[in-house]
Amino acid sequence: MNINYSMPTRVIMSDGCIAANGGLMRSLGKKALIVTGRSSARVNGAYADVVDALTANGQDFALYDKVMSNPTVACAYAGAAVAVSEKCDFVIAIGGGSPMDAAKGIAVLAVNKVAPSDIFSVNVINALPIAAVPTTAGTGSEVTQYAILTNDAACTKTSISSPELFPRIAFLDAKYTKSLGKDVAINTAVDALSHAVEGMLSARSSPISDALALDGIELISECFEALESGTLTDSVREKLLLASTLAGMVIANTGTTAVHAMGYSLTYFHDIDHGRANGLTLGYFLEFVSKTEPGLVENILRAMNKKTVADFQKALDMLLGKHEKITAVQIGTYAEKAFNTKNIGNCKVKPSKEELIIILTKAVG
Amino acid sequence: MNINYSMPTRVIMSDGCIAANGGLMRSLGKKALIVTGRSSARVNGAYADVVDALTANGQDFALYDKVMSNPTVACAYAGAAVAVSEKCDFVIAIGGGSPMDAAKGIAVLAVNKVAPSDIFSVNVINALPIAAVPTTAGTGSEVTQYAILTNDAACTKTSISSPELFPRIAFLDAKYTKSLGKDVAINTAVDALSHAVEGMLSARSSPISDALALDGIELISECFEALESGTLTDSVREKLLLASTLAGMVIANTGTTAVHAMGYSLTYFHDIDHGRANGLTLGYFLEFVSKTEPGLVENILRAMNKKTVADFQKALDMLLGKHEKITAVQIGTYAEKAFNTKNIGNCKVKPSKEELIIILTKAVG
Repeated sequence: MNINYSMPTRVIMSDGCIAANGGLMRSLGKKALIVTGRSSARVNGAYADVVDALTANGQDFALYDKVMSNPTVACAYAGAAVAVSEKCDFVIAIGGGSPMDAAKGIAVLAVNKVAPSDIFSVNVINALPIAAVPTTAGTGSEVTQYAILTNDAACTKTSISSPELFPRIAFLDAKYTKSLGKDVAINTAVDALSHAVEGMLSARSSPISDALALDGIELISECFEALESGTLTDSVREKLLLASTLAGMVIANTGTTAVHAMGYSLTYFHDIDHGRANGLTLGYFLEFVSKTEPGLVENILRAMNKKTVADFQKALDMLLGKHEKITAVQIGTYAEKAFNTKNIGNCKVKPSKEELIIILTKAVG
Repeated sequence: MNINYSMPTRVIMSDGCIAANGGLMRSLGKKALIVTGRSSARVNGAYADVVDALTANGQDFALYDKVMSNPTVACAYAGAAVAVSEKCDFVIAIGGGSPMDAAKGIAVLAVNKVAPSDIFSVNVINALPIAAVPTTAGTGSEVTQYAILTNDAACTKTSISSPELFPRIAFLDAKYTKSLGKDVAINTAVDALSHAVEGMLSARSSPISDALALDGIELISECFEALESGTLTDSVREKLLLASTLAGMVIANTGTTAVHAMGYSLTYFHDIDHGRANGLTLGYFLEFVSKTEPGLVENILRAMNKKTVADFQKALDMLLGKHEKITAVQIGTYAEKAFNTKNIGNCKVKPSKEELIIILTKAVG
């Protein structure tokens, strides 16, 4: 048995958890930089709850609300400049994966002089403390040490990873996910499912991460019908939010695998949503692994209440609808790119470049 | 859903994990106080491995090896005096629950002036950093914020609790448990089982702690036959050690319940081993809860691969053998003491004093 498990983020979940536990942010600093996208944090009420908590704590704050989807390195620099000029000593991220990833980049750049060309290779040993308020149920970034930014130099998304980037606190309140549309709910749920499944398929999985992953897989699978019909009750939203955090706790320890490696190209070159991009290949990667590790895949399928990989693929496709199609040349290029990522070395069953081509062809060929 | 989950301890497990990961202790300080019992840490090899790692790191150390079973407050003061005189700036606990609990007390008292009469009411806001090397598979103290010391003023065992007392790192190497005798293996396994089960019966349980608890319960149940026959293979010892850590992660978040509350008197007044003391009442408390929360108890029994509470009681009694007997007057006294602990408030189904008398009478009457 080989375990190296760490999860320093405190996870707080309840209806009204920021109002009830906002006092915990007192220990983070004197002035927060609140990092959000352009509007959703205001619409879903999370921004107001954070401001109320900071005000009650007697803490000052500034706002950086210019984070776009798949945030760029430039966005992290711009936010860091605000943190510095406003003398912020901690960061609060509110949003989906994009604001949380950007906030982590900001937390690094606010206290480190790093050239843009070095940002993906820098050894981060200090950063501003972070609190995270997820408003989608997918990324898990609220409990990971990864900041995933668009890497235009390499035409992909790349992660900065450091123990300093684990948020100190994650506040989970499912009511903030109420304003999400059906497509976003599906794509983020599929992203979370992918994290939990990939965690179990990772060479770094352990009985601790597997326990969390199986719980997450079970919770998401229970929500498939509600996701398909678009009728998400409060209880379903809670399950999805908890599952996405569980899945984040998993990948913080296991990393992701070939599915994410392939997905990054689909997102970068075809603007396919990140969660959906993972979902497109997830079933076919599971099928590939099942040939070598049938018992492992059976455990995953059991948690999904599915008998075969084909059953799972069918259920997943009910959510995803018709898959996008790309050319054979594109598939060859993306298989090559994926094959050269560290995610492939992270797979319990490592696919060859040719096997990645087969998986991508089944998924989007 | 209501979650407040925190587990800041890094858990590292493998054969040879200290040699492979001892470098992580560099961040803890310059000079360690190694805290152990009188001899077992030397016999099982853990002490030598720790010393080798510190030497390789260029870190100095001193030794306090006078921890007794059910460590006293005086023992913590004595160890703290060594830490101060030797100018130690971190603590490494090697052993079962007793050295780990004592080490936590030492970590507090080395940097805080606290009168012995105040030790169980002090608000601990700083302590020396701690690394823990469990050499039994039961206590879970390597991943909890509790230091449980003998409280002679109150004739019981009482815990000091503070986030500062979570060890920074827990090194789990099952070979250190090889020298344990059959009785210790059984008593510690029953202690861990009790932690996992009580965690699920706690009012503070959450889906995260439940996922870890069910995994722990399953692992220990798989080892029942091996424990009974006294033939513990390396693989069984690994399962038991992992399960005890999982169960520790659970009670760090949920606290313990009536079982521990009753057990403390059996240990204090009758010198019954802590794990065994919990085991004596565990089945009867489960039976009590099943009347109000049958679904919850069914989940626990399913993880144990048992159909009924009686089946579980039978399997547990195969390990425990004949129960000790105490008088009705003693039962009345201990029920009263247990009823006044905060552990009772922590129960999902709270027993009355009379119900505690019934449970204790079935267990040891």
